[in-house]
Amino acid sequence: MPGYRVTSMAFSERVSRLKSSLIREILAAAQRPQVMSFAGGLPAEVMLPKVDWTDMPLSIGQYGMSEGEPALREALAAEARRLGLQCEASQVLVVSGSQQTLDLAAKLYIDKGTEVFLEAPTYLAALQIFQLFGADCITVPLEADGPDLVQLRTRLAQHRPAFIYLIPTFQNPSAVRYSEAKRDAVAALLDEFGVTLIEDEPYRELTFDGGSATPIVSRLKTASWIYTGTVSKTLMPGLRVGYLIASPDLFPHLLKLKQSADLHTNRVGQWQALQWIGNERYRQHRSELREFYRGRRDAFQAALQTHFADLADWNEPQGGLFFWLRLKQPLDTRTLLNDALANDVAFMPGEPFFPEPDKHHGYLRLNFSHIEPARLDEGLKRLAAVVRQAQIDKAA
Amino acid sequence: MPGYRVTSMAFSERVSRLKSSLIREILAAAQRPQVMSFAGGLPAEVMLPKVDWTDMPLSIGQYGMSEGEPALREALAAEARRLGLQCEASQVLVVSGSQQTLDLAAKLYIDKGTEVFLEAPTYLAALQIFQLFGADCITVPLEADGPDLVQLRTRLAQHRPAFIYLIPTFQNPSAVRYSEAKRDAVAALLDEFGVTLIEDEPYRELTFDGGSATPIVSRLKTASWIYTGTVSKTLMPGLRVGYLIASPDLFPHLLKLKQSADLHTNRVGQWQALQWIGNERYRQHRSELREFYRGRRDAFQAALQTHFADLADWNEPQGGLFFWLRLKQPLDTRTLLNDALANDVAFMPGEPFFPEPDKHHGYLRLNFSHIEPARLDEGLKRLAAVVRQAQIDKAA
Repeated sequence: MPGYRVTSMAFSERVSRLKSSLIREILAAAQRPQVMSFAGGLPAEVMLPKVDWTDMPLSIGQYGMSEGEPALREALAAEARRLGLQCEASQVLVVSGSQQTLDLAAKLYIDKGTEVFLEAPTYLAALQIFQLFGADCITVPLEADGPDLVQLRTRLAQHRPAFIYLIPTFQNPSAVRYSEAKRDAVAALLDEFGVTLIEDEPYRELTFDGGSATPIVSRLKTASWIYTGTVSKTLMPGLRVGYLIASPDLFPHLLKLKQSADLHTNRVGQWQALQWIGNERYRQHRSELREFYRGRRDAFQAALQTHFADLADWNEPQGGLFFWLRLKQPLDTRTLLNDALANDVAFMPGEPFFPEPDKHHGYLRLNFSHIEPARLDEGLKRLAAVVRQAQIDKAA
Repeated sequence: MPGYRVTSMAFSERVSRLKSSLIREILAAAQRPQVMSFAGGLPAEVMLPKVDWTDMPLSIGQYGMSEGEPALREALAAEARRLGLQCEASQVLVVSGSQQTLDLAAKLYIDKGTEVFLEAPTYLAALQIFQLFGADCITVPLEADGPDLVQLRTRLAQHRPAFIYLIPTFQNPSAVRYSEAKRDAVAALLDEFGVTLIEDEPYRELTFDGGSATPIVSRLKTASWIYTGTVSKTLMPGLRVGYLIASPDLFPHLLKLKQSADLHTNRVGQWQALQWIGNERYRQHRSELREFYRGRRDAFQAALQTHFADLADWNEPQGGLFFWLRLKQPLDTRTLLNDALANDVAFMPGEPFFPEPDKHHGYLRLNFSHIEPARLDEGLKRLAAVVRQAQIDKAA
């Protein structure tokens, strides 16, 4: 290899905010087959549906529209209306996984120092991309039934955020689902203060008690909004097909940003998604998924009771893919990682899910969907032992 | 619809640089079936290969690695080495079409006011995204065999660009292919001044005279580089599978930016690309493509001679998808659009391919790959009539 010059002085200022690769390292380590991983957010592989490609027309190979396939946009709009979200297909933009919605939103709103509101904790990759673009991330504490409304009002009175980013249904990482009352209250506050809402709902369909509250965006009267969803949790993440639905004032900008990002979402994945969205087969598959994950959730809850009852508190999640544990004796859970991996167990420390990690020690995010049941008990037992040892070491 | 508040004051500063939708409007107008379109850059639909999906494993539906599929990265690195580009699979990043390379590069390098070098003319969508991020776009004039080297040296001595973006092989829009001598000279200059090269090669394989000069990045000794390619022009653009290969100092940053943009490229498209890259079937298909497009180029050249010989000058392209015409009597070709569309003909005005459109009147980009041969002659005849009439009107 030739000796490359040091060129990093020529990088953008934004690159100095690219986060360390802690999470990538955890997930890479979790790839080793012997590792019992609670770290990722992967669907269970056995539940990936059998898909058929035989009828896909060759013309799908051609360039497509930046907006997405017209029939898919219609189908997604119809599904959203069934959820109570009044919208037209013209407001639907098919994106390359709902992660791309965050990229487009960051481009649309964030300059260096732009204030944005987030839940604490919040989705790690959202936090990372908003910070990459230079956002000043202001948080609202999350309670068991949604955000602390007093704090939300206080912050709204003090700041002018470009938007608020919320995951009201089985949040990643906390598994919190907002109550009806808090959904209404949040919508009213955002209308009152004229703050745009970005509502991220990847987990909506993975509900274990049948609950289905309408999206917060559907309760807004005047505020602008972006609603985003995906087929990643209910069909196949490898397709990289997500969507956003936006209020008409935002859509044209998001469309241009999508075009400049990657021209359009891959049409093969869009075609496959269209074979499912809105039909009986998809309803059946989602019903089976819920059944399957409910079983895994139950088994996980039981194993947690066995191994973590004396170590941590948690709420049993009613949907989604995660348990969120709070240690009774808080410590920086990042310091547990090496020992856990040495014992072939991977988990996600809670600190990186907060903009100020060092003010929020003692949380662990545990994925319950992906681990094989046969290894669940052993994995949690080992993880509990790591926590116990760390607390002994700390006390010593 | 409720009356949305005016929220645009809350957008990022970047959004004020989002370009008007002229190009989108042209392409939308060109969708009408009666329109004879020379506007887009679409592969001929009849040349999309028959693809087979029956052997794709279900596990492709799972999340994948941000880097891309390991086997595909190996295959792309092997192909690049055959071109003379010494690289390892660890330097290959699979992207969602090579358009995404431009997005990642813009994020890596461009703050408001960052100087970047481009050819004049250059790829429209590159210009747009670099400007969106706030770049100060400095151009180097293009001659028939590559950039004006005197001007390139002068600008390198005067500026400190974050990178130079070049399309040395059958450039879009000009169809220029750099000579061997200019490739060497450009590489030497970039090493001398320590300027990073982004080399974009979507058209390399569409060569009609068999020429195959090695990439400029392979001639660099010390400068950093990003090389980007795609399967869009030789397999299927609808897959949205492209790749970049980067010098080792840049790769980790690009990988993190890719992850934050869309987690990873769709695996279905990656799997299909892997069925072709590096094998005999793909070589055969590309050979047929070259034959087919050469035929279309020849027919287009003949029709141009008939209708445009008195109106414009051009070089016969030896590859790629475009003719680039310079009117003998320059006028703002954007003013021709309405008349052309009224006559059911679409083309791409040349002005938007320059950062300073009003200093570069009188160019037209005409795509020769997509129009049906039966409509070619009529289309060019009508377009010539529109030009002729505009020149009469202008003289009047």
